[in-house]
Amino acid sequence: MSRFDVLTLGNALVDVLVHADDDFVARTAVEPGAMTMVDAARSDQIYAEMGPAIEISGGSAANTAAGVASFGGNAAYIGRVSDDAFGKVFSHDLRSVGVHFDTPLATTGSPTGRCLVIVTPDAQRTMCTFLGAGAELDESYIDEALVASSAVTYLEGYVWDPPAAKQAVRRAASIAHRADQRVALTLSDPFCVERHREEFLDLIEGHIDILFANEHEITMLYEVETFDEALHRVRGHCDIAALTRGASGSVVVAGDDTHVIDAYPADVVDTTGAGDLFAAGFLYGFTHGKPLATCGRLASFAASEVISHLGARPEVSLADAARSLLGD
Amino acid sequence: MSRFDVLTLGNALVDVLVHADDDFVARTAVEPGAMTMVDAARSDQIYAEMGPAIEISGGSAANTAAGVASFGGNAAYIGRVSDDAFGKVFSHDLRSVGVHFDTPLATTGSPTGRCLVIVTPDAQRTMCTFLGAGAELDESYIDEALVASSAVTYLEGYVWDPPAAKQAVRRAASIAHRADQRVALTLSDPFCVERHREEFLDLIEGHIDILFANEHEITMLYEVETFDEALHRVRGHCDIAALTRGASGSVVVAGDDTHVIDAYPADVVDTTGAGDLFAAGFLYGFTHGKPLATCGRLASFAASEVISHLGARPEVSLADAARSLLGD
Repeated sequence: MSRFDVLTLGNALVDVLVHADDDFVARTAVEPGAMTMVDAARSDQIYAEMGPAIEISGGSAANTAAGVASFGGNAAYIGRVSDDAFGKVFSHDLRSVGVHFDTPLATTGSPTGRCLVIVTPDAQRTMCTFLGAGAELDESYIDEALVASSAVTYLEGYVWDPPAAKQAVRRAASIAHRADQRVALTLSDPFCVERHREEFLDLIEGHIDILFANEHEITMLYEVETFDEALHRVRGHCDIAALTRGASGSVVVAGDDTHVIDAYPADVVDTTGAGDLFAAGFLYGFTHGKPLATCGRLASFAASEVISHLGARPEVSLADAARSLLGD
Repeated sequence: MSRFDVLTLGNALVDVLVHADDDFVARTAVEPGAMTMVDAARSDQIYAEMGPAIEISGGSAANTAAGVASFGGNAAYIGRVSDDAFGKVFSHDLRSVGVHFDTPLATTGSPTGRCLVIVTPDAQRTMCTFLGAGAELDESYIDEALVASSAVTYLEGYVWDPPAAKQAVRRAASIAHRADQRVALTLSDPFCVERHREEFLDLIEGHIDILFANEHEITMLYEVETFDEALHRVRGHCDIAALTRGASGSVVVAGDDTHVIDAYPADVVDTTGAGDLFAAGFLYGFTHGKPLATCGRLASFAASEVISHLGARPEVSLADAARSLLGD
């Protein structure tokens, strides 16, 4: 019996969320619908041009941990924030939903990272990330006992961007496997896949048991034209792949098995966090011994909740929702 | 012709907004539905017990300035924040909606003030304010040229809580009147009225042209039982009084005239900012030469917009809305 169901590891960020039109995204010259890494000066410049914003804790893997906790799972998180106002906000928001988070607040170096999230009228989000303190996450942040006592260690692809974090991720994966636990990865973003394709392919081959990706990311990974080709390639590359297709639902492949799952209907307000919460639902089900099709349904349900409001973390108890979904 | 329609002065705060049940408010031992002043330690303690929050710029008079700007008016603000993450958020959010705000960021002393806003399922808000840097607002922050060039200088009653700000307020009122401009005051909160009744009565007598209050505040001010008695007392005490009664609408009295205005229908999500935006609508109309009944309708409309969503500042352009409301 593991102490934690899911340990997630990623870039710790506070989201700075603004409504804007497509023209603003075009003027800002970042990739619409994707995540662009920016330095402090560029982040400040875009912020200065933005309208009034709200601040809300984010960070892809942290959102997943919050989602697992909302389902009633035991979740933990590793990520680096600074001992400043945003760092305290990030820590509070994660701990207050019951996620175990004891990475020490950094007292030197960059301020806590922030992600400018521009939500356009079509509910799509475009993100500009200044990693800040998150860029300095390294091997020393990997708590061996914590990793070894987590049934699944979940890694975000974004964490490949800060150079020192790669070693941290490899160390975490190796500790987890030595302890006979599972390792999961999300590809995070098509441009992230483009930046790190070879390393991702290598990592999946040797170290990943459960892979999360959306249609764009998985086709980008294998440099194929169609989703079906990507399905063919991913089968056997890792034990389980959970692949999302937006409103068209998701597909879970495991060995010879394929489960096609419908998306839950939602009035889409802000797609931020859809993938993060999909992973949360799936991993909650997986670590509670549910069949893969049920894991996929929990995943779709959690994603549908988070896209129906602003922000990337659940606003309701997913545990309550899951009870009726699972009929128990 | 004044450079600014409305200059507002108040405690600069970032709101830390959380959903919680009535039990949480009871356990926190603060006054439900009101504003309680807390010190840094108590603020931290309540925050530690709160669930996940969102951060969003607030401060009563700053919300009013943002509202005036949203109507298309020229608005300015005086308030004290620190040169920290929350101070930058506050400054950005105000300037990005077009409010003139050039109070320098303080580089010493307390951090930027914050207001823990607990929203209960009945959409009522209970506030715990740590003034922080705002407590050190004093006379030196009153820019004489700015006050003299503003058609209305609007003061929040809350600003009577930090001791040094009273002198600042008196100085602002006296500059405004010497420049033949108008001075407005909101009573802010029933407990605020209780704390400062004698000073408020004296200030209104000599220095206030336009008074804003809700039913509880105005009956508390005059220590009377009924709204009608309060109406009788306020008539002649200042030129204009605009008094709100929640869903029952509002009453504007000016000399012998009385205008009764219906509330606009709204699906109430969060009442934070209702009074602030009421004042914004009224003062926008007033500084644009509208009849008092129209000012009251603009006020009610602005209040209805802000209570229909989370946060205390408008989410839509009130200018667009006002055009159809005014039929021009």
